[in-house]
Amino acid sequence: MKEWGEVGDVRQLGTGMAADIAEQPEVYAGLVEARLPAIQAVAEAIKAKPPRNVVFAARGTSDHAALYGAYLFEIRLGIPAGLASPSAITLYGARPDLRDTLVIGVSQSGGSPDLSEVLRVAGEQGATTLAITNAPDSPLAQTAALHVNVAAGVERAVAATKSYTAELLALLLLVEGVRGLAPDDLAVLRALPELARATLSDPTAAEIAQRYRFAGQVVTTGRGYAYPTAREAALKLMETSYVAALAFSGADLLHGPLAMTDSEVPVIAVAGTGPGGRSMHSVLERLAERRADLVVVGAGESDLPALHLRTPDVDERFAPLLDILPLQQLALALALTRGEDPDAPRGLKKVTATL
Amino acid sequence: MKEWGEVGDVRQLGTGMAADIAEQPEVYAGLVEARLPAIQAVAEAIKAKPPRNVVFAARGTSDHAALYGAYLFEIRLGIPAGLASPSAITLYGARPDLRDTLVIGVSQSGGSPDLSEVLRVAGEQGATTLAITNAPDSPLAQTAALHVNVAAGVERAVAATKSYTAELLALLLLVEGVRGLAPDDLAVLRALPELARATLSDPTAAEIAQRYRFAGQVVTTGRGYAYPTAREAALKLMETSYVAALAFSGADLLHGPLAMTDSEVPVIAVAGTGPGGRSMHSVLERLAERRADLVVVGAGESDLPALHLRTPDVDERFAPLLDILPLQQLALALALTRGEDPDAPRGLKKVTATL
Repeated sequence: MKEWGEVGDVRQLGTGMAADIAEQPEVYAGLVEARLPAIQAVAEAIKAKPPRNVVFAARGTSDHAALYGAYLFEIRLGIPAGLASPSAITLYGARPDLRDTLVIGVSQSGGSPDLSEVLRVAGEQGATTLAITNAPDSPLAQTAALHVNVAAGVERAVAATKSYTAELLALLLLVEGVRGLAPDDLAVLRALPELARATLSDPTAAEIAQRYRFAGQVVTTGRGYAYPTAREAALKLMETSYVAALAFSGADLLHGPLAMTDSEVPVIAVAGTGPGGRSMHSVLERLAERRADLVVVGAGESDLPALHLRTPDVDERFAPLLDILPLQQLALALALTRGEDPDAPRGLKKVTATL
Repeated sequence: MKEWGEVGDVRQLGTGMAADIAEQPEVYAGLVEARLPAIQAVAEAIKAKPPRNVVFAARGTSDHAALYGAYLFEIRLGIPAGLASPSAITLYGARPDLRDTLVIGVSQSGGSPDLSEVLRVAGEQGATTLAITNAPDSPLAQTAALHVNVAAGVERAVAATKSYTAELLALLLLVEGVRGLAPDDLAVLRALPELARATLSDPTAAEIAQRYRFAGQVVTTGRGYAYPTAREAALKLMETSYVAALAFSGADLLHGPLAMTDSEVPVIAVAGTGPGGRSMHSVLERLAERRADLVVVGAGESDLPALHLRTPDVDERFAPLLDILPLQQLALALALTRGEDPDAPRGLKKVTATL
């Protein structure tokens, strides 16, 4: 019989997710170098027929990439962008007027029938359709007029990690490609693999996982570009460690859920050094008043009592590509310390088919 | 000293929220009768300059009313509709092209500076702006070109109840007013106060609250028109009873969070008899496999082992006005049985100012 703390059998668990996480620097390098021309071609197609509006259709992890994409289109290109409720079309038969609209389906597998149906109807309704997937032969990719292959390679674990960050980076390259990629930005993009490698080499996330071995719930929060990171971190914690993880924008947190926090509730706040991060200061103060157990993710410093997951100090547009990395590691380590297998969460399949 | 179970002091708690909840039938009657002409005038203004897109800006409870509104605009009017991320404008200075766009701010108090700022910028960017508030003299109402007063009266509790359902009904009357209110629909609308009264007289919600006295977390779920109800129920449980309540669309639940559910997790599923409710059947089956403790809200029957909160069998468009009522009662009763004061949740204020 093994003693508690021996890792002989535990090491078999989560090896797939660990490998997926570790590959992200390579995936970044591949996208920025090898895939850039293909993504630029899609950007040119969008520029040739500039949309008045952008609508994203996605589920689960890819929904968080879509949220990031919506911020990019709105802030960087001045095009209103939002997330669709697929059920309006698939369940209630809505046929909205989508002329001058770019409808983007984001899906790792490209295999969910409801997203393909949304893109099919969107095309009929006059939209330009674009699929962003890790599966170029998938139904979603074949339904869309345009396709971006995020080329993350086969994902071993059910919990998505490298396909998520590949979707983020593909969306960033696409939007900056429409705008015209600035030399300074290209320099940051080329440095991303090394920045990601440095971030992943920090052991702090695994240490924090020990602290939260018995946490029953976790709150995650962030604003602006950091909000998708907060959402995705919560989903990773739920699907790998079965912890009740609640994500809120920093603003929405003050509208109700703040009441829920106390010294028993870890709060993971993604707060960098840009406008989104600065706007979190007052939220962090309110959380500290409620004696929440704070973990701050980002490059900034804080006077508040908090643990820190430090990530590189980059423009907030790039931060989601780095800030999520220690949070993926935290989810993995928390699952392992609880004896769960993050590669195959109970009750889940890799491709989720919803109608 | 009082024994546990004596309600002498407990009856002082939550009287405001109880009164707010009880007034909803009157609020419905007031909106359908007295406020209809004013709302129809706003509908005519929208018809006079039909928008190509609708964008909602809202926070907290009002965000759930906005989500309902987005379904209505898309399904009933064929106009693409979505929810804005205010921070794109307020933190990052995005100035999206909003010509041909109707931007709707929804807020009980109309006092949050970030929503007023979104509407101000939207007006400058060419949008028609509309405020839906319970406060006609508020900054939000004064900033917008158009205003709908939901006329719910002063809300006593911090946790919003009657102002939420008043926002829902105002949005329904507005959208149906643009479309042209059908006589059959008007008959249902006129019956709403009585249907609401009957729903509120059912003691089942208070009984279920006893069962969940010690639940550490709750999952709520629904699809389509029922999804806002699931979201709002989760927020009420969080802000009054400090329970970790996670809301998912039925489709998103299968993409990850399902792993979190087991026999320790109550799942409140809003599932009526229309398209959204029918699409929940497979979700309910998956939840039953995971031995979740199921509560089904709606008019339908189910073979699965579940508790039922029965609500009137109306078209799914109207169901959000009734299905939330027992869930408000559940949140109130759960707070009281835990000795909390739902009228004044710890750490919260009635008007939340975010920038």
